[in-house]
Amino acid sequence: MHRSFEVTVLGTSSAAPTKTRYPSSQLVRLEGDYFLIDCGEGSQHQLVRLGLRMQRIKYILISHLHGDHFYGLPGLVSSMALFGRAEKLTIIGPAALKGLLDTIIQMTESRIPFEIEYITTNPEKAETVLANRKWSISTVPLKHRIPCTGFVLKEQGPELRLNAKVCESMGVPLEWYEPLKWGDDWQKEDGSIIPNAMLTLPGNPNRSYAYISDTIYDESIISHIQGCNLLYHEATFLHNLQERASETHHTTSKQAGQIAAQAKVGKLMIGHFSSRYQQTDDLLLEAQEEFTDTLLALEGLTVSV
Amino acid sequence: MHRSFEVTVLGTSSAAPTKTRYPSSQLVRLEGDYFLIDCGEGSQHQLVRLGLRMQRIKYILISHLHGDHFYGLPGLVSSMALFGRAEKLTIIGPAALKGLLDTIIQMTESRIPFEIEYITTNPEKAETVLANRKWSISTVPLKHRIPCTGFVLKEQGPELRLNAKVCESMGVPLEWYEPLKWGDDWQKEDGSIIPNAMLTLPGNPNRSYAYISDTIYDESIISHIQGCNLLYHEATFLHNLQERASETHHTTSKQAGQIAAQAKVGKLMIGHFSSRYQQTDDLLLEAQEEFTDTLLALEGLTVSV
Repeated sequence: MHRSFEVTVLGTSSAAPTKTRYPSSQLVRLEGDYFLIDCGEGSQHQLVRLGLRMQRIKYILISHLHGDHFYGLPGLVSSMALFGRAEKLTIIGPAALKGLLDTIIQMTESRIPFEIEYITTNPEKAETVLANRKWSISTVPLKHRIPCTGFVLKEQGPELRLNAKVCESMGVPLEWYEPLKWGDDWQKEDGSIIPNAMLTLPGNPNRSYAYISDTIYDESIISHIQGCNLLYHEATFLHNLQERASETHHTTSKQAGQIAAQAKVGKLMIGHFSSRYQQTDDLLLEAQEEFTDTLLALEGLTVSV
Repeated sequence: MHRSFEVTVLGTSSAAPTKTRYPSSQLVRLEGDYFLIDCGEGSQHQLVRLGLRMQRIKYILISHLHGDHFYGLPGLVSSMALFGRAEKLTIIGPAALKGLLDTIIQMTESRIPFEIEYITTNPEKAETVLANRKWSISTVPLKHRIPCTGFVLKEQGPELRLNAKVCESMGVPLEWYEPLKWGDDWQKEDGSIIPNAMLTLPGNPNRSYAYISDTIYDESIISHIQGCNLLYHEATFLHNLQERASETHHTTSKQAGQIAAQAKVGKLMIGHFSSRYQQTDDLLLEAQEEFTDTLLALEGLTVSV
């Protein structure tokens, strides 16, 4: 049985908000854990509006220090404090973020009654920043005007599933179920060994979600996102503004489709639309010409990975 | 003829936003000049949504450095820059605001292509911080948990209006109309003097708007807001939470009504409602028992001063 792994879009706008679009933010839910990726101004408001419980967020991932990706963070942290959070919050992002948030907390004389742990991203190097038995978070170096990383969230888990019929008929005790899924042989009480292969079947492959924040068109990211089930890639402009995209270190919708095609991902979701586009249909069509299985990010949309 | 003087409410929530309420912010329009008073998270989004042009804002007044009153400021300034503002922006607020905004601008490597002038408020003393022939801005010291001021915006202008019939029949030249309204006598070309009183009538009294941000119930503010046409006063709690209001240095709705009655204001608008109140009807009724001409602040509402 697949575990839950889904992305809810909170904001799809680049730079400035529009009447209907918020700046960048997404909530990822992976087997009970909540991750917020980027936190543009108004992200806490979107969480409230969509009925998503902010206190369940354990990890906040910030791609870079442009305002449309983190100006919602001080307000979110304040509200978490106001509503009595006690649980630790882990913030993964650029090195300067800690100092900036500390300064704001101090100047506003805010009392934050919970621990904030910071994990610093390295914009020069892809690396796994956090991992446990259930999932891992890795960074992808991106080429933007300031240091910036993307993120890959990947399920971790047993590569095997139980062959339920055989286990039951042989009377495997319940406490052996988990070790078997991880590849152990069954050692019976009498000391005899039943090989793992008799008791298990190949498991479901681990799914992954890649979040590619602000970047110029850059094929060097492909190796890091190869074959992911869902790729979010920024698509700030239509391709007729390719020069403007390049100057500002952004990607066109066509280019986002090209990256998805080369990386052979399952699905592509595009977002971070320039406020000049009131309608986003053309952005979708342009990406779909390069990669059919493309969808538009939209405030409130939940996509299953 | 009265000049335009109106207040548009952008946010009415205290501390955290609710599904429908934004944190504190109001746009005041006074004879073509735009003033933003407080700038909670999402204020720029509210301006966009309500079709109010952010570039027309010349003055931003910040009452105090709690996040729900200024976390929208970095994003608003960034968007003003993004959309090519060249005109100077004047920010009136606590001394620490400049350093904080400078730090944020620097860390995000934002280019702000316009001048920002800072005027520091003194939380200990009522004073006029800016004035010209059209209007004046004064501060009101408030008692909150951190340094905080309210603001009074007052029309300035001629205290007289022309007696049009007399002026026409006597052939007063057009260039004398403005000086007459300010009290000058008419000196004719032949040197003779026609006294002002023959040519003018008593003018419309200058209207004023008082914005009383976060404060404990405090009768010492009354002398500063006496007789204003419109008073905005925070009303965070119902009176059954009077103790909580007092502990957190806030006012109850009943108390806001009492202040309005003692100050003999024209109208009272209450806001800054705790997120615990989904409905605000009871807050209104409670204030109205003390002061009949009370209305509820509401996102998007425009009130004429």
